[in-house]
Amino acid sequence: MRKERDYLGEIEIEDNALYGISSKRATQIFPNTNEKFDKKFLWAYFMIKKAAAKLNTELGYLEKEIGNAIEKACDKWEELLPHIIVDPLSGGAGTSVNMNINEVIANKASIILGKEFGFVNPLEHVNMHQSTNDTFVTAGKIAIIVRLRELIDKIINLQNIIQQKEKEYYSIRKVGRTQLMDGPPIMLGQEFGAFADALARDRWRLNKVEERIRNVNIGGTAIGTGIGAPKEYILKIVNTLRETCCVKIAKAENLIDTTQNMDVFSEIHGLLKALAVNLYKISNDIRLLGSGPNTAIGELILPKVQIGSSIMPGKINPVIPEYVMQISLIVFSHDSLINHAASLGNLELNQFSPIIIHYTLKSLKLLKNACISLSKYISKIEANEKKCKENLEKSISNLTPLINLFGYEEVANAIKKANYNFFKAIEILSKKFNIPKKNILEKIDPKNLTKLGF
Amino acid sequence: MRKERDYLGEIEIEDNALYGISSKRATQIFPNTNEKFDKKFLWAYFMIKKAAAKLNTELGYLEKEIGNAIEKACDKWEELLPHIIVDPLSGGAGTSVNMNINEVIANKASIILGKEFGFVNPLEHVNMHQSTNDTFVTAGKIAIIVRLRELIDKIINLQNIIQQKEKEYYSIRKVGRTQLMDGPPIMLGQEFGAFADALARDRWRLNKVEERIRNVNIGGTAIGTGIGAPKEYILKIVNTLRETCCVKIAKAENLIDTTQNMDVFSEIHGLLKALAVNLYKISNDIRLLGSGPNTAIGELILPKVQIGSSIMPGKINPVIPEYVMQISLIVFSHDSLINHAASLGNLELNQFSPIIIHYTLKSLKLLKNACISLSKYISKIEANEKKCKENLEKSISNLTPLINLFGYEEVANAIKKANYNFFKAIEILSKKFNIPKKNILEKIDPKNLTKLGF
Amino acid sequence: MRKERDYLGEIEIEDNALYGISSKRATQIFPNTNEKFDKKFLWAYFMIKKAAAKLNTELGYLEKEIGNAIEKACDKWEELLPHIIVDPLSGGAGTSVNMNINEVIANKASIILGKEFGFVNPLEHVNMHQSTNDTFVTAGKIAIIVRLRELIDKIINLQNIIQQKEKEYYSIRKVGRTQLMDGPPIMLGQEFGAFADALARDRWRLNKVEERIRNVNIGGTAIGTGIGAPKEYILKIVNTLRETCCVKIAKAENLIDTTQNMDVFSEIHGLLKALAVNLYKISNDIRLLGSGPNTAIGELILPKVQIGSSIMPGKINPVIPEYVMQISLIVFSHDSLINHAASLGNLELNQFSPIIIHYTLKSLKLLKNACISLSKYISKIEANEKKCKENLEKSISNLTPLINLFGYEEVANAIKKANYNFFKAIEILSKKFNIPKKNILEKIDPKNLTKLGF
Amino acid sequence: MRKERDYLGEIEIEDNALYGISSKRATQIFPNTNEKFDKKFLWAYFMIKKAAAKLNTELGYLEKEIGNAIEKACDKWEELLPHIIVDPLSGGAGTSVNMNINEVIANKASIILGKEFGFVNPLEHVNMHQSTNDTFVTAGKIAIIVRLRELIDKIINLQNIIQQKEKEYYSIRKVGRTQLMDGPPIMLGQEFGAFADALARDRWRLNKVEERIRNVNIGGTAIGTGIGAPKEYILKIVNTLRETCCVKIAKAENLIDTTQNMDVFSEIHGLLKALAVNLYKISNDIRLLGSGPNTAIGELILPKVQIGSSIMPGKINPVIPEYVMQISLIVFSHDSLINHAASLGNLELNQFSPIIIHYTLKSLKLLKNACISLSKYISKIEANEKKCKENLEKSISNLTPLINLFGYEEVANAIKKANYNFFKAIEILSKKFNIPKKNILEKIDPKNLTKLGF
Repeated sequence: MRKERDYLGEIEIEDNALYGISSKRATQIFPNTNEKFDKKFLWAYFMIKKAAAKLNTELGYLEKEIGNAIEKACDKWEELLPHIIVDPLSGGAGTSVNMNINEVIANKASIILGKEFGFVNPLEHVNMHQSTNDTFVTAGKIAIIVRLRELIDKIINLQNIIQQKEKEYYSIRKVGRTQLMDGPPIMLGQEFGAFADALARDRWRLNKVEERIRNVNIGGTAIGTGIGAPKEYILKIVNTLRETCCVKIAKAENLIDTTQNMDVFSEIHGLLKALAVNLYKISNDIRLLGSGPNTAIGELILPKVQIGSSIMPGKINPVIPEYVMQISLIVFSHDSLINHAASLGNLELNQFSPIIIHYTLKSLKLLKNACISLSKYISKIEANEKKCKENLEKSISNLTPLINLFGYEEVANAIKKANYNFFKAIEILSKKFNIPKKNILEKIDPKNLTKLGF
Repeated sequence: MRKERDYLGEIEIEDNALYGISSKRATQIFPNTNEKFDKKFLWAYFMIKKAAAKLNTELGYLEKEIGNAIEKACDKWEELLPHIIVDPLSGGAGTSVNMNINEVIANKASIILGKEFGFVNPLEHVNMHQSTNDTFVTAGKIAIIVRLRELIDKIINLQNIIQQKEKEYYSIRKVGRTQLMDGPPIMLGQEFGAFADALARDRWRLNKVEERIRNVNIGGTAIGTGIGAPKEYILKIVNTLRETCCVKIAKAENLIDTTQNMDVFSEIHGLLKALAVNLYKISNDIRLLGSGPNTAIGELILPKVQIGSSIMPGKINPVIPEYVMQISLIVFSHDSLINHAASLGNLELNQFSPIIIHYTLKSLKLLKNACISLSKYISKIEANEKKCKENLEKSISNLTPLINLFGYEEVANAIKKANYNFFKAIEILSKKFNIPKKNILEKIDPKNLTKLGF
Repeated sequence: MRKERDYLGEIEIEDNALYGISSKRATQIFPNTNEKFDKKFLWAYFMIKKAAAKLNTELGYLEKEIGNAIEKACDKWEELLPHIIVDPLSGGAGTSVNMNINEVIANKASIILGKEFGFVNPLEHVNMHQSTNDTFVTAGKIAIIVRLRELIDKIINLQNIIQQKEKEYYSIRKVGRTQLMDGPPIMLGQEFGAFADALARDRWRLNKVEERIRNVNIGGTAIGTGIGAPKEYILKIVNTLRETCCVKIAKAENLIDTTQNMDVFSEIHGLLKALAVNLYKISNDIRLLGSGPNTAIGELILPKVQIGSSIMPGKINPVIPEYVMQISLIVFSHDSLINHAASLGNLELNQFSPIIIHYTLKSLKLLKNACISLSKYISKIEANEKKCKENLEKSISNLTPLINLFGYEEVANAIKKANYNFFKAIEILSKKFNIPKKNILEKIDPKNLTKLGF
Repeated sequence: MRKERDYLGEIEIEDNALYGISSKRATQIFPNTNEKFDKKFLWAYFMIKKAAAKLNTELGYLEKEIGNAIEKACDKWEELLPHIIVDPLSGGAGTSVNMNINEVIANKASIILGKEFGFVNPLEHVNMHQSTNDTFVTAGKIAIIVRLRELIDKIINLQNIIQQKEKEYYSIRKVGRTQLMDGPPIMLGQEFGAFADALARDRWRLNKVEERIRNVNIGGTAIGTGIGAPKEYILKIVNTLRETCCVKIAKAENLIDTTQNMDVFSEIHGLLKALAVNLYKISNDIRLLGSGPNTAIGELILPKVQIGSSIMPGKINPVIPEYVMQISLIVFSHDSLINHAASLGNLELNQFSPIIIHYTLKSLKLLKNACISLSKYISKIEANEKKCKENLEKSISNLTPLINLFGYEEVANAIKKANYNFFKAIEILSKKFNIPKKNILEKIDPKNLTKLGF
């Protein structure tokens, strides 16, 4: 054990540990919550440290030897991850994780230089011209952009798979349902087409939003005024960082605003929840269409991805749609959390930025999971054409087009009289209006009814 | 128009209006939101004013003539309601509505005494020894207790109606479903029994919670220290108020705590949302069981309460279950609102008490509506015994008990080979194990399977 | 009382009532909830009926006499509003309000033609080629577009007023605060500038979103396949409607998708909640900056819009900021409601569209209220320059720039030794490093620290 | 690698792995989410398996050798945890985790018996007479009871520490604040007393709720009818389990209801969120009282638990209160999630029980963390008596008691005239009413004003 001290006192640290006193203190005051940082967030944070060291060296604020060592340490970020010991849910706008990263880099850089711990200083070298308040939110935005792109890829894939089903089921006629009740006919392909078009909107939305979070506050230091940092650093750091992390970030016009206002995260997550809305709807519809299979709707044959029951042999459950629905519900709860957290910032800073960013990244991961699982699942779905046909023939809503022939009330009365039996109702109308049944049946051939207009 | 002034300036008021300058100002600064106060909340507020006037007169702080006039004015509360013009969503912990009531009572009392407006003073007479901060929350609690009892009555009624169905459907055997897939058999009566038992918990919970909100802070004035009020008033006001409004309130032990902490509302609403959980589940189940009726589950015949579609004749939709589900969703959103509002109080007061109380009362009203509508609806539901029987015969889950005979895997394999056809599966097992089909069928007679244990 | 009947039975209706049997039934099965339809929503609904009548007449489906009478009746929509008696929270995807409007128009048209009630038929004439499912959502979108524009105007106004304050307070130097603790100096104008820039984003977002909800499903009838409507009607109705209501709607490419998927509402409301985030933050900051005024921050002098307390004379409370915060909290709860409701649609329809649209319109109204109230309020705010100056001089964060001179730890130690006294800390550093106090003070002149960089 | 097969096909599994094909499949279809099961939940699940094996052996359904081996395997649960590889967020009501546990125990039991894998069968031996649907929810309830007790202990501790502060600060007089504005005087001890009394309610509530979740559905198997299990097992299993896990569970009266209805979790979490309300309020108040310290309220001296800023030396932030507030916000979001998930169950089962139980346990853990951190923190808080005194002397609300002497309006006018200066206002009143200042000051001695009544 080695000892370290800051102006609050002394503390013992494991000998091999690259973290230091601030990290250790943080683990003592913020108990472990089982939460894990998104790896890309930590990566982005290391990239910020690297860019700052590079620029500070270039501008002459940092000795070349130290600056280079910091850069090298940052390049080894993956190897350093086990030394990031603070919890994602630690109070104070993220100071602890910034300090943890500063300390780990400083010590690694000292090792690289063959020096003792402390030679490279976490605050005075690694954190030079930075604050938690600009680095944390900037790292968050970079990570979110990267994760967003991954998610969009998976949405595209899901959309493609659904569109294949749309084509495959193009000519399978079936009953439509509104409010879970038998409605007018529709094509099974049209149902999948509606799923696909909803996802197309999600793609478009999420593609567009990237430009809304590109604006970062790095260089603004504590409150966006750039206090403690030189002008030339402030002006150049975004460029250096963009080159370092290869993500198209831009300097926010008003660094003060960007430091304290978190509405952009609420906006982004507002689009993630729109995706969650569609995923829930699609999954629930699949669950309904595959329900039974013998005693409910049963129009889809659900893939057998696992044994459904430890007690009922042969049972296959819609576990993947349910998994996706669970994730949507979780994303909705994250959304509410992020709104409140974003609104509760005070004056020059939002003290809740750690949960805002952490839960945004969690949603991105969960939604990616959902898209992957659902894509595989839907690709294995089969249509139960026989059931589609049987159901269609039983639906009284097929009589709808007859309102143009007999009027709404006459048709309704016939249905009521027929006690909801499709064929009896036609018989009644045929007799009453003296029109051959065949002619009536032609009028309501589902083939004609799924095309737009009559 | 008459003119009134306070220390902020002068304002014009309609001649016949019983409200005064504070009420008028409030309508100018808080635009109308279409929200309406719960009538019982306003009633409770008037009762507080009456009790205070009575006690202040008894204790000699208020001249008898004025005190009596205030009491009389309060008794005419229903007639005074049109003069309550401030919006339920007005900021500031409820000051505006307290002042509106003070002014209306004062002017009415002046009229009763045949005096000019102003003779009875809203602040110095009507509001004597009170503050918005103790009267508002106390009025809220009284109103909630009254509304809770009304709600409980409606829950009891709903439970009774469901229990009638439980008995009525006692012997209707049907397929059970888990994850929307065919499961082991169950009695239709048992399904309604589960609904009824869930509601029994709601009854019990809401009955118990009354004792948790009885503790009121009246007498605590601004911050619970009773500042501005004499000790004898503080000690007696709860008794006087209890007699006046006939609701079993009690003096809170710590008036400071009761003035600033709103966790009790979060607790109460936490039970209302548990009721909403059950109402949603019950309504959704009814919707599912009645779905189709021809092409989905169709085991219940849903009441025809209105024409279901302006385009599809004969269509009947589960509008009442949907209505109840909508209300549950709204109650969930109120719950989230109340939690946040309750947590966001600062120091000696919760500035958001107006929305906490308003939305609790809204939930109570909506849930009462829901119970009334659902009761009527369920009473008219009919079982479709034929469909129950047909569905039951098709369910492969009926084979479950055979795992005790042949083992899980053998049964599962048979079902898979039979392509989920119930009778084929039995045939396969019968052949493989050389047991007559009849004997197998006996083992899985649904009659035996809905009783507890085999 | 007159009697009307439909295929469910007979009912009595007030003689003068323009509504009919379906409306009356709806009020009986859906108890009143105190909610009110947004007037623009009803207007939009009447415009749809007008457009349909016009087009159906042009296309020859409707007799000219009847078509014209329907159009005339629709033009009198404001006069007809008292006859819209169904509750906004009625189940069933909005059938009841569609029928209420159909009935009222039909009867009004009959009157216009000097005929008996029933001459113009609600379903066969007024509702011709329409369904609740396409008219309801289309009316909702039109109303939302109109209300969005009104809201944007109010945001612009609020932003302008804040920008005036930004200029006015341009040179008032004050202490910044992070996590409510004394931080580096900032200009009061910069604080208002950050508010203004947040609102600029809201403007931009809400402006952009209009194009996302323009796509309407009118013509799709029950499930988006246009069942029951002729092709020429389907192709032309959006044009006719656009001309009728003068809102730039467009025909959705996939009417089936647009009928069943409600993600667009979740998206729109996701932007409304981002506005709520900013309004909450701004209001809370104003509340904090004006807190006290004597014993807390007190840097702003809050407008005296009403008497703050019925017991504490002279007290002025931040009721408008609190009002706006309440509204933000309510909008957050609506957001959660809309997400869930949007996700819970089933197959060809979302049965919860009534609450989705109703609560979106409620949020729009409340946010408009909030912007109006807050604009007036902020315009009357005054800076307490004296307090800003006093506070600034006491803040130890002014020493931050010295870390470039002495290093982080030395400054921190000096502050700790000085027991957080600003001047003592400087003295300690001055002595230790033998630098005249004057020179140190120059380095940290707040004048230089609020500019970007040093 | 070894191979295993079920009726869906064959799969490869690591040689040393104790899990089997079902577990492996689950990890393939449900991608990792970074979530971890609560250890007590897994423990409870093993105890259920142990109890079932014991009872099944006693009743003669299981061979002694196998039964005993299963029991022994269960006792080694902690050593088996690394083999629990399925994700807490896996769809399907928890089937995957039940199967994972079954497989791990079966294989461990086979090892104990010196047999090959497969000798003890996961389904036919370990899962005998059980279903996921009764074991999962029962395990959840047992774990929640254990975690609830741990939480209650921490609440008691927090309450004790706050009560110590209540006593310690008993005689520190200070200004009260409502709506963040200067209000009547209060004792610092009274403020901590209000915190303590709020927590006392939490203790009481959570103590009481245990009896509400004791009722478990074990023995009900798939849907609560006990299908597949013998009557004697159903009747005795709760007793055996209670003895095995030493938690006072009871057999639910209606196993069907208890299997499908999740309102009890919504109820329990409704109380956890009430605790979150109080923790948020307390933490935020501490943050406000300690704000500054030089330029805001500054009446508490906040503990220096970590360095507050990587850029502002000497800055100490209220990171623990913020941490607790973050946790409260997270708990609120869990609450909303659980309500919706609980309401969305269908018919005989709630498919979302995995998230209901997982997030309840997460809330319990987070709240325990919060109580621990906050206890330590509050114990180190110090009062800034000097600041309390200074602030108190500046507050105009001290003049409140004078309304009994001069009337509300006279005092309000004096304050306005004095421009909110406390002493000037007294002078004005003294002159106007010709009463010596000394006499006035006596009337409003804060010493008298913090006691109840005057």
